[in-house]
Amino acid sequence: MNIPAVQHHAGYPDVYLASRKKLVVTIHAAAGDIKTCELLIFPRTAPEKISSYLMQRVTRDGVRDHFTAEVITEDTLRYLKYYFRLTDTAGKIYFQNAWETSENEPKDGFYEFLYANETNVLKVPEWAKGIIYYQIFPERFANGNSSNDPSGCQEWGTAPNRENYMGGDLSGILKNLEYLNSLGVECLYLNPIFKGDFNHKYATTDYLEIDPSFGTKETFQELVETCHKYGIKIVLDGVFNHCGIHFAPFQDILEKQELSRYCDWFYIRKFPVEVSETDAVYECVGDYGYMPKLNTANPEVQAYIYNVMVFWLNEYHIDGWRLDVADEIDPSLWTRIRYRIKSAYPDCLLLGETWGDGFSLLDEKSVDSIMNYVFRDSVRDFLARGSIDAKMFNHRICQMRSHYPEEIRQALFQPLDSHDTERFLWNCSGDIRRLKLAALFQMCFPGAPSIYYGDEIGLNGDNDPDCRRCMEWNPAKQNEDVLSFYKKVIRIRKENPCLRTGNIVPLVCEKMTYGYLCQSDSQQIYVLINGAEEANEVRLPVLKIAEYKDLLTGKSYQADKLVNAGYFNEDMISCQGTVKLSLRAFEGIILKTGGMENEKK
Amino acid sequence: MNIPAVQHHAGYPDVYLASRKKLVVTIHAAAGDIKTCELLIFPRTAPEKISSYLMQRVTRDGVRDHFTAEVITEDTLRYLKYYFRLTDTAGKIYFQNAWETSENEPKDGFYEFLYANETNVLKVPEWAKGIIYYQIFPERFANGNSSNDPSGCQEWGTAPNRENYMGGDLSGILKNLEYLNSLGVECLYLNPIFKGDFNHKYATTDYLEIDPSFGTKETFQELVETCHKYGIKIVLDGVFNHCGIHFAPFQDILEKQELSRYCDWFYIRKFPVEVSETDAVYECVGDYGYMPKLNTANPEVQAYIYNVMVFWLNEYHIDGWRLDVADEIDPSLWTRIRYRIKSAYPDCLLLGETWGDGFSLLDEKSVDSIMNYVFRDSVRDFLARGSIDAKMFNHRICQMRSHYPEEIRQALFQPLDSHDTERFLWNCSGDIRRLKLAALFQMCFPGAPSIYYGDEIGLNGDNDPDCRRCMEWNPAKQNEDVLSFYKKVIRIRKENPCLRTGNIVPLVCEKMTYGYLCQSDSQQIYVLINGAEEANEVRLPVLKIAEYKDLLTGKSYQADKLVNAGYFNEDMISCQGTVKLSLRAFEGIILKTGGMENEKK
Repeated sequence: MNIPAVQHHAGYPDVYLASRKKLVVTIHAAAGDIKTCELLIFPRTAPEKISSYLMQRVTRDGVRDHFTAEVITEDTLRYLKYYFRLTDTAGKIYFQNAWETSENEPKDGFYEFLYANETNVLKVPEWAKGIIYYQIFPERFANGNSSNDPSGCQEWGTAPNRENYMGGDLSGILKNLEYLNSLGVECLYLNPIFKGDFNHKYATTDYLEIDPSFGTKETFQELVETCHKYGIKIVLDGVFNHCGIHFAPFQDILEKQELSRYCDWFYIRKFPVEVSETDAVYECVGDYGYMPKLNTANPEVQAYIYNVMVFWLNEYHIDGWRLDVADEIDPSLWTRIRYRIKSAYPDCLLLGETWGDGFSLLDEKSVDSIMNYVFRDSVRDFLARGSIDAKMFNHRICQMRSHYPEEIRQALFQPLDSHDTERFLWNCSGDIRRLKLAALFQMCFPGAPSIYYGDEIGLNGDNDPDCRRCMEWNPAKQNEDVLSFYKKVIRIRKENPCLRTGNIVPLVCEKMTYGYLCQSDSQQIYVLINGAEEANEVRLPVLKIAEYKDLLTGKSYQADKLVNAGYFNEDMISCQGTVKLSLRAFEGIILKTGGMENEKK
Repeated sequence: MNIPAVQHHAGYPDVYLASRKKLVVTIHAAAGDIKTCELLIFPRTAPEKISSYLMQRVTRDGVRDHFTAEVITEDTLRYLKYYFRLTDTAGKIYFQNAWETSENEPKDGFYEFLYANETNVLKVPEWAKGIIYYQIFPERFANGNSSNDPSGCQEWGTAPNRENYMGGDLSGILKNLEYLNSLGVECLYLNPIFKGDFNHKYATTDYLEIDPSFGTKETFQELVETCHKYGIKIVLDGVFNHCGIHFAPFQDILEKQELSRYCDWFYIRKFPVEVSETDAVYECVGDYGYMPKLNTANPEVQAYIYNVMVFWLNEYHIDGWRLDVADEIDPSLWTRIRYRIKSAYPDCLLLGETWGDGFSLLDEKSVDSIMNYVFRDSVRDFLARGSIDAKMFNHRICQMRSHYPEEIRQALFQPLDSHDTERFLWNCSGDIRRLKLAALFQMCFPGAPSIYYGDEIGLNGDNDPDCRRCMEWNPAKQNEDVLSFYKKVIRIRKENPCLRTGNIVPLVCEKMTYGYLCQSDSQQIYVLINGAEEANEVRLPVLKIAEYKDLLTGKSYQADKLVNAGYFNEDMISCQGTVKLSLRAFEGIILKTGGMENEKK
C-alpha cells in the first residue's frame, strides 16, 4: 500500500456536516491502490458499538482516489471516534489517527468527531445549486435609455478600449429580460453597477448609489422586481477590496492628509498622499494607483461593508453578492460578515471570486461558493485549444471536484469565460463547433453554469478590453445556430435535474473523446463528447441493456450486452450494456433511457 | 517519484505569513523520495523574474518528508506565482498547481499567492513561546485560608473522589508563589476559579465572580499582581462550551420555561425543561445533565462570553485564556472573538483545549495555541509505558510538529499529564526514573512544557478523580530526588534558549534510545535519552569535532572524527564528529560544546 499517499484530515473538508445529523467523511489514496475502504465509527463512551461503512469511491482523478461515507444519526452528532480499514492486494492496513497506521485492529488513539455545531454545518442556499447564470457587463449589454448616456458616449458597437463608453444601462437589461427568460437563464450576475470610475465601475465612488450612466435606484428596483416576477435571481458585484480615488474616505485623506479620520481605512505607506497611477504611496489592487486598497481588517471598514451589503439586500431584495477578488481580502472580513449576513439573510448567496483552488475561501466559515475558473481552464484546454486529451481533462475536472464537498460542488459558478478573459470562441479561433460542444458540456455538468452575455449568439473577442464588446441585437448578425443550440441544451438541462446536482462517473477517456454518466438517485444521463476534428466510434458502457435516446437529435440506440469489461470505471458502477456510438467532429450526444427509473423526478 | 504522496495546499498551513513581508511555503513528499526540492516564485506581472529557493527538509517522520522555504521581501508580499521543481533519482518533476505535474518547465496555471493581509499573519504572543507552565487544580494545591473552606471540607490529603472538598484556594497559591518561583515556572494555568458547582468548578454559575471557597476578587487581584512581580504570567480556564445548572440564564428557563428570554442560549429539545443527570431534554457536554451546553453560535451568547473574557483581562490583567473543550464549541465563536480580543489585547494568549490534531482550531483565524496531548501521548507511550520504540516515537513527534507552522510549534502547550489524565508517574507504574527522563525530555524539547502540580515532587495518581490528590507540602513526604532533578532541568532549559524555540534534528533512533540536536541560529544542544532498563552505548553524531559537556553531570566528552556516515539524518545536517556515550537505564544526557557558537545568545 502506498501509505504516504493516504490522506485524511480530521476536519473540513475531509470531515464535514451536511446537517447536525449527517456527517460526510472522506479519505484519499493513490489511484487504484486500494481495493476496499471502510470507515469504522463508534461512540466514545461505547467502543464496542462499532458501525462499519463501506466507503464509496466517488471520484478518481489521474493521481488519487477519493472515498466517501455518510454517517446519519437521529440525534445531534457528537462524541464519536473513528478509524479506517484499507485493503489492498497485500492485506489490511488500519489508519487510526494522523500519525499511526497498523496491521492490527487499533485499540486507542482514534480520530475523533466531537460535536455538530451549527456553524460547522455546510449550507449553501438551495436556489444556487445547479442554477444557470447569465453574466452581464452593464455598459455593453443594451442601451435602454439614451438620456443617461455618459458624455462622449460612442456609437453602439464601437470597438471597446479601456476608456470608451457605449451607453449600456439598467433599462437595457430590463427591456431584454424577456429575451433572457426565453433563453432560459435563471440568475443574472451583474458586473458593478454602483457609482464609480471607468467603464467597468470596479473603482467605486459611492457604494450606496447606482452609477448615473446606468440609471436610477427606481430603475434598479424595477429590474429586481421584474427579474423576480420571471423567477430570475439577481446577484450584484461587491467590490470591497478596493475603491476608486473619488470614494469620500479617500478624498478626505487627500484633503486632510495625516489629520483625516480615514487614514486607517487604507494602507498608507507615507505622507503626503497624492494620486499616482504607478507610484502610489498607498497600497492598491494590482498596484494600480486609481484603485486604493481598503484596509479590510479594520473593524470600521468591515462595519461599512456590512452595511452596504445589508442595504441592497434589505432595500432592494437582491439575492446575493459576487465578491470581487475575495481571495485578496482580509479573511476576517468574510468570517465576520458571513456570520452576520447569514443570521438575517440565510438565502443570500456569497460567491467569491478566485482563479485557483477555492479551498481557503470555502471553509465552512467564509463564502458559499466560488467562481470556478479551474473548470473554465480545463474546458478551454480540452475543447477550445485541444491542448490536453480526454484523460488529462478527466483528471483535472475530477481533481477539481474532489477539492469540494458535494454541497459546494452543486453550487460552483462554472463559466466558459468572463469580462476578465478572452471569449471562449476566441480561444476556439472562432470555431463555432467547439463553442457549441463546450456549451453542451457546461450545461450537462453538475454545478452552476454561467453564460457570459453574447456567448450564446456567437459574440467574439480577445481578452479585456475586447471581451467587453457591445451585445449584438441585430438578429441578422446573431449566430442563430449557436443561439438555438444554447436554447436546446439549456432546455435539456432544465428537463433533467440530475444535470444540475448529480454525480459524475467517467466512462470513456479515449484520445479526445470523453464520456460520463451524470446520475442522481432517480435519474441517469450519459454524455459523450468528441473534442477532435476526426470522427470517432466508441462503445459507451451503460447501466442497463435498454433503448437509449439522444436528447439532442431524438435518435434511438439499442444497448448490447457488455462483453469487454475493460472500460474506464468498472469499480464505481456496474454496467450491463454498451451502446455503439459514432461521433462526428466536435459532436456531442446526450443519452437517456425511456425506462422507469427516469420517471421518478 | 511517488507523485500521489506529494502534497501542497496553496493556503494555511502550507503557505503562511510570518509577517506581511515574510512568506513560509511547505511541501510534503514520501520520506526519502525526493533528492532536492526547489520553490520557484515570480511576480505575476514579471514571469521572467524567477527567484529560486532550495527548500530545506525541516522534518522527516516515518512516512513523509516536509520541505520549507522562506520568502522575504522589502514590501508587502503580493501578486506572486509559484511552482515546485522536485528531483529524485529518475529526474525532475514540476508541480505547478493542485492538478498539474509535468516533466517540462510549466508555462501557465501556477499556484498563486495574492496578498499579505493582516489577519493572514500568524502571530502568537511572544511571551508564550517556550514558556514553562505550571498547572494548578485550585481545590487541591494549598489551603491558604481556612475561613473560606466549603462546608463538609475534609482533611488535607484525603483520597479524592468526585464529590469531596479539601479546602484549596487562591490564598494557598499566593502563599506558595515563592516555591513556584524557586522551581522556575513562568506561567500559571489555573483550572476554573469562577463560582461554580463541583470541586472542579467546570460547571460555572457566575463567570464574573470568584468561587467563594477559593477566595475573593481582592485575593485574586493580589495573586495576579504578585505573579507579575515575580515575572510569572497567569492564564485562566474559560469554560464557555457549557455552564452549570445554577447559571442565571439556565435558572431562568427552569422558572419560565418557553417564556424565558434565554431559550436560545441553550439547545432545548423539548419543554418542559427540568434537570436530569442522564436524560436531559437539553444538549449537554458529555451528555451530562448538570452541564448544559451553551448555544455558542448565538450572537448574544458570543457577546456575553466576549464580555467575560474582556472583564478579567481589563480589570485583573490576566495574561490569557485556556479555553475548555475549544474543539467542541461553535467555530464562529473563536473567529469572532479572536478578532475583537486581539484588536484590544494583542498579547492575550488564546490556548485551546484539544486532544487530537489542532489543525482545525489553529487556522490563523482562531486560537493561538493548543494543549498538545499528542505530545503527551507520545512521551507516555515511549518513556512511561515503553510500548513504542525510538523510531515510532520520532515518527510521532515529528509528524506532530509537521502539522504546525514554526510560529505555533514554539508555543505549543506540552504536558506530561493533567487534571484529565492519569499522572505520568502512574503510567510509569511508579518508576521515578521514567518520570525524570520524561521531565528531562519535556524541558529539552521546543515548545512550552507544562508541569501538573505535584509531578515535580513525585505526586502519583490514577485518572480523574485520583489525579487530583492534594499537593504534598511536607518536605519529608516529597520526593527530593525528583524535585531537585526538575529544578536542574528547568535551570538548563532557562540557560539555553534554543531548548525553548529551536528546531529538532533527530540523530539517533536505536531501539529505545533517542537522540537529537536542538538548534537555533546561535546555539546547539544535543539530547540523548535511553528509555530502557538495559544500559546502552551509542555514537551520537555531532556537528564539530570538539569537547562536549553533559550539562547534567558536568562530565566532558571528546568527539571523534566521524567514520561511519550511516547515522539518522545525514542530509539535514552535516556532522563531522561523533561522541561515544554510555547510558544507564533510563538515563538522559544533555550535551553542549564549550565553543564560541554557544556564546552568542
